[in-house]
Amino acid sequence: MANTTTAGKPIKCRAAVARAAAAPLVIEEIVVDPPKSGELRIKISCTSLCHSDVTFLNLNVPTASFPRIFGHEAVGVVESVGEGVTEVVEGDMVIPIFMSDCAECRDCKSKKSNICTKYPFKIDPLMHDGSSRFRDLNGETIYHFMCVSSFTEYTVVHLANVIKVDPTIPPNRACLLSCGVSTGVGAAWRSAGVEKGSTVAIFGLGSIGLAVAEGARLCGAARIIGVDVNPEKFELSKKFGVTDFIDSTSCGEKSVSQMINEMTDGGADYCFECVGRSSLVEEAYACCRQGWGKTIVLGVDRPDAMLQFRSFELLVNGKTISGSLFGGLKPKSDIPILIKKYMEKELELDKFVTHEVGFDEINKAFDLLHQGKSLRCVIWMDK
Amino acid sequence: MANTTTAGKPIKCRAAVARAAAAPLVIEEIVVDPPKSGELRIKISCTSLCHSDVTFLNLNVPTASFPRIFGHEAVGVVESVGEGVTEVVEGDMVIPIFMSDCAECRDCKSKKSNICTKYPFKIDPLMHDGSSRFRDLNGETIYHFMCVSSFTEYTVVHLANVIKVDPTIPPNRACLLSCGVSTGVGAAWRSAGVEKGSTVAIFGLGSIGLAVAEGARLCGAARIIGVDVNPEKFELSKKFGVTDFIDSTSCGEKSVSQMINEMTDGGADYCFECVGRSSLVEEAYACCRQGWGKTIVLGVDRPDAMLQFRSFELLVNGKTISGSLFGGLKPKSDIPILIKKYMEKELELDKFVTHEVGFDEINKAFDLLHQGKSLRCVIWMDK
Repeated sequence: MANTTTAGKPIKCRAAVARAAAAPLVIEEIVVDPPKSGELRIKISCTSLCHSDVTFLNLNVPTASFPRIFGHEAVGVVESVGEGVTEVVEGDMVIPIFMSDCAECRDCKSKKSNICTKYPFKIDPLMHDGSSRFRDLNGETIYHFMCVSSFTEYTVVHLANVIKVDPTIPPNRACLLSCGVSTGVGAAWRSAGVEKGSTVAIFGLGSIGLAVAEGARLCGAARIIGVDVNPEKFELSKKFGVTDFIDSTSCGEKSVSQMINEMTDGGADYCFECVGRSSLVEEAYACCRQGWGKTIVLGVDRPDAMLQFRSFELLVNGKTISGSLFGGLKPKSDIPILIKKYMEKELELDKFVTHEVGFDEINKAFDLLHQGKSLRCVIWMDK
Repeated sequence: MANTTTAGKPIKCRAAVARAAAAPLVIEEIVVDPPKSGELRIKISCTSLCHSDVTFLNLNVPTASFPRIFGHEAVGVVESVGEGVTEVVEGDMVIPIFMSDCAECRDCKSKKSNICTKYPFKIDPLMHDGSSRFRDLNGETIYHFMCVSSFTEYTVVHLANVIKVDPTIPPNRACLLSCGVSTGVGAAWRSAGVEKGSTVAIFGLGSIGLAVAEGARLCGAARIIGVDVNPEKFELSKKFGVTDFIDSTSCGEKSVSQMINEMTDGGADYCFECVGRSSLVEEAYACCRQGWGKTIVLGVDRPDAMLQFRSFELLVNGKTISGSLFGGLKPKSDIPILIKKYMEKELELDKFVTHEVGFDEINKAFDLLHQGKSLRCVIWMDK
């Protein structure tokens, strides 16, 4: 579809619309409005399913917004740009990122923060300006998801939420860098700053945990201990650099933290909680090394979940605890580095892709994730 | 008293003995045994009173050990050394430090930890080998305090707990570096790594809080916000670099964290909790800057006090929380740097000394601290 015929006009295209919580997506025709000032419209090439899509699709609360287009890991080609957009032009290959990078606010200008103040991270059902670019054929508003909404042939995103990428990167690999893999790799690389020769413990060997392992491997960790309830994950996790495995269901009378403290003679240098369970954060904290250990929180189970720490222990153990949102990565500067690492065969993306389906089979991607069969299922829009 | 006449023999001397919880100290004659292997006996020149002495003197629990000799901020001269001690010799001026630095364990060898594994920090009533070097004239054991016990003319400490210092430093300044001032200055310098031009918030303007201010001032902080319940402290705190003051009892409907978030347009770069109250740690955390803010915990009210954080906030705000024991300082390498900074008139110690008394008046030092009249009261052993 040539730009000259579509730019500035609404586009009719197919989208997988979530009409209700926890229900299968419905592929239907929708209307995608043209990008407003500072925005661009993208023709999605590939999208992949991340666990957050499932979490928010299933979140059956009165404030949930339906109908909605989920999806936030993707890659595509710029179809047209809105007023004032010069950083990318029609035909550019771009990765949308749910984390904004406006290049203007104090956070985006600082090397230390990846949390844009101008367009703050929120699970928002609308564009930054508070409106939607999607509607169904009856004119009803369809909501956005995390400023990306990639389960559609066309989407509109803000310039602060895209990275222009080298078009030689295969789209079914590029899309992975939108969220999950970057989050895990970044957590090891940027948030924790894993040092060469160090010991890492990872709680939860889903795709985020394995991405942390991949990041720790890239940083030169000498030992990567994986903790999971499912011992079947050990074989797979070896591919990602995991060297030791703890089946948390069969520690006997010992806690996982006791096991790790014993295995490492005092604790791991870095502990990553990738499940989203407060009790596991506390376990992770309990087995990170006194004096310098860092506990990094990547998951959250419920918005109201609380963490508890004994104040005295915090004081006397020299450990640090922090969260990691998008792995502490600054989208516009760090994602190009990860792409380079992939192109140079350092960062291994291929092993994350366990399944690939066509757009019509998008609900199969959800089934595979539910069944614990997939790490990343890539959805090809044109197949 | 010449070494040749005392080395290897018990010394009879005067000590201020705590015979019971919360009772005034009793100056009496005691016997100080000679140092064992790896230890040295010190003739104390000056000692100063730190709040921890008061806390533990007043701690009326069944496990409290009495009679006991408190005091852990001091400076003195080596009277004799035990077997294997070559790092210091008789006549050397030394500062005892409650934090061990054994130079052998993984922590002491690492640049990242100040928490010795070989001789771990504990509020222990005995020497590292589990015995006491003090007894009264009836032969009853007198207990140690934090491996220092400086409220006595002579004490025995382990080599891991002393720093040899330049004898030109005035003893009534040197003793301050044993604990409180170093802890506060170190928290800003080492634990937080306060950067030039940054904004700092300090909860509690006691001597530790003011030492944090002094450390932040040394690091080049542009703005230092002091929070206290007592507005009378503002004038004094200005001397320590505090630029803004919040009287936490008169914030109206706003919380202190709201006030600081407004004053700083989003939070302070570094927040220090120096009171030891869990609710204040949570307040401090709530007003440290998203993206890079660090909350440093220096105080603890009760050993069982818990801190609570919302897991989701930890994840999305990019803040870090950690404790700071002895300001994150490595005694053997960092204290000499602080001494140098004092001798070069960068680190200002004089302003911490509000009172000086002779040993016979030691209980007056306690009274002054109770009444909130003193920052540091130096006790001269020979006066």
